[in-house]
Amino acid sequence: MIETPYLLFLGDAADPLAAKVAQGIKDWRPEFAVGQIRLEGCNADMKLPDMTIAEAVGKGVKTLVIGVANRGGVISPAWKSVLIEALEAGLDIASGLHNLLRNEADLAAKAKELGRSLHDVRIPTVQYPIANGKKRSGKRMLAVGTDCSVGKMYTALCVERAMRAAGKKATFRATGQTGILITGDGVPLDAVIADFMAGSIEYLTPDNDADHWDLIEGQGSLFHASYSGVTLALVHGGQPDALVLCHEPNRPHMRGLPDYQLPSLEALRDLALTMAQIVNPDCKVVGVSLNTSAMSDAESLAYCAEVEKRMGLPTVDPFRHGAERLAEALEAI
Amino acid sequence: MIETPYLLFLGDAADPLAAKVAQGIKDWRPEFAVGQIRLEGCNADMKLPDMTIAEAVGKGVKTLVIGVANRGGVISPAWKSVLIEALEAGLDIASGLHNLLRNEADLAAKAKELGRSLHDVRIPTVQYPIANGKKRSGKRMLAVGTDCSVGKMYTALCVERAMRAAGKKATFRATGQTGILITGDGVPLDAVIADFMAGSIEYLTPDNDADHWDLIEGQGSLFHASYSGVTLALVHGGQPDALVLCHEPNRPHMRGLPDYQLPSLEALRDLALTMAQIVNPDCKVVGVSLNTSAMSDAESLAYCAEVEKRMGLPTVDPFRHGAERLAEALEAI
Repeated sequence: MIETPYLLFLGDAADPLAAKVAQGIKDWRPEFAVGQIRLEGCNADMKLPDMTIAEAVGKGVKTLVIGVANRGGVISPAWKSVLIEALEAGLDIASGLHNLLRNEADLAAKAKELGRSLHDVRIPTVQYPIANGKKRSGKRMLAVGTDCSVGKMYTALCVERAMRAAGKKATFRATGQTGILITGDGVPLDAVIADFMAGSIEYLTPDNDADHWDLIEGQGSLFHASYSGVTLALVHGGQPDALVLCHEPNRPHMRGLPDYQLPSLEALRDLALTMAQIVNPDCKVVGVSLNTSAMSDAESLAYCAEVEKRMGLPTVDPFRHGAERLAEALEAI
Repeated sequence: MIETPYLLFLGDAADPLAAKVAQGIKDWRPEFAVGQIRLEGCNADMKLPDMTIAEAVGKGVKTLVIGVANRGGVISPAWKSVLIEALEAGLDIASGLHNLLRNEADLAAKAKELGRSLHDVRIPTVQYPIANGKKRSGKRMLAVGTDCSVGKMYTALCVERAMRAAGKKATFRATGQTGILITGDGVPLDAVIADFMAGSIEYLTPDNDADHWDLIEGQGSLFHASYSGVTLALVHGGQPDALVLCHEPNRPHMRGLPDYQLPSLEALRDLALTMAQIVNPDCKVVGVSLNTSAMSDAESLAYCAEVEKRMGLPTVDPFRHGAERLAEALEAI
């Protein structure tokens, strides 16, 4: 568990896209985002107060979060001096970089000396159990996709926002690095040992109030040759009561697999439901979430309407139109 | 890759079942099994020559294989002195124990000093790639099961034996610790990091002669809530041309999951084929392998005949009746 609130470190971000972790925190957990810190050459801006480390500490910040990808895969000397200063001022550091903080000798030594935590969220810190498949109290929704990176994290976050706005109990459950940094907790599923994947998702979504919904971030796709096993562990460990089908139109092929076409939403519905009903016979497909970011407003609405008619399910682009209809579909279960 | 041939270490095996790894090597790779070494209180016997370490070295043995489970989960002092002696005599050591050889300070130091290898086959030694889903040359069979531990390894080994006896090119591909110790190579899939599972199976079953069959050991079950993700990685990484359905009748519930019934062979056929055809549209289900070890000869034959009629597929207990019919079904593809 990463202590909040955060100071968002934007470093020398080459462009706004490089700072997408910071953007995610700003968008989804604004109450965690107290300020930002930018270095020479930074081309990203979260429209948060620029702060020194000392000012951030004065505002109650607990953790500096690296909200940016590092250039060339190295943690540069310019970054280092800020990170060391943060540790010395009493902050922890959290990172989703491939280069682990703990492998930087100077950071590791300083953190140890001062008793600070270095959170490398790519690496599991928990010894997860083997899944036991037992029914848990509370409700769970899982976002499943026709492919990787079609909007499963944003779908779950949008549904959380809509449910909370309606006064309902809902918790986004992160299963990837960005989601973990946004919320401060979760399971880095792609780095979990095979035998413990489903168990890690049971651990992430424990017994809860009968009217509470866990909104589980999906990963990969049952149809993706590289990552389908990870996805199935989510379906069987998550034991969902509801599935939302996620899709991005107009992809030429599965992400990273030029020889593979995307499945239809109908094929996703049938296979995901078959798989989910092995662990929860009452599971239902409740809606469709489309990522229409490449379309005009008119195109987006027309496309959603067309898919809704075809599938007979509430269909929205939740980031664009809100997720109220998906939230209502969950409540109707 | 573990160097052969082997001296099989039976230790102080409480009973024959405790030495099932040694039994597997003796049954399936008799040419690797030069001799055995037994300690005070050993209740297992592979009917191999009992040898001292020095005698084994004289017979050309390269590796001492721990073919027995350790009592109480500790490597006892009585074992230690034999293992140290083996290293000093020039042997490597291979083990599938949960306690890793490398974590025993005295063994690790001695192996390092002498330049010997300690093979802990529970732990991957390769940095596997992400799966790319590309079609590979050669043919592949995968054993899939209604549950864990229903005979998938034995099925693949039996088919290998039958194909080789008929002069065909075939290689058993181990995906679990026992299989790896039997054959000296393979992927310990349950210990692989989630993102690399399917890639590890592509690595295990590379391009081969057009008329060569890889016979891939299955793991878990698509219907097993704890391990289904591991199974799906095998289906998608293995890209099988043929599936054999494995089943053990009369189980009260899924292994380790009292709340779950076993699926029917029909349900396994449909789901496994749907999954396999995502990566290989030409994949076929070619036969059924039943573990009838709890039945009389007459019951076993009657049950196989009944399932064969019901499923319309060649159906055998391959360990009991031979796997020739399954091998022929592969050749017919």
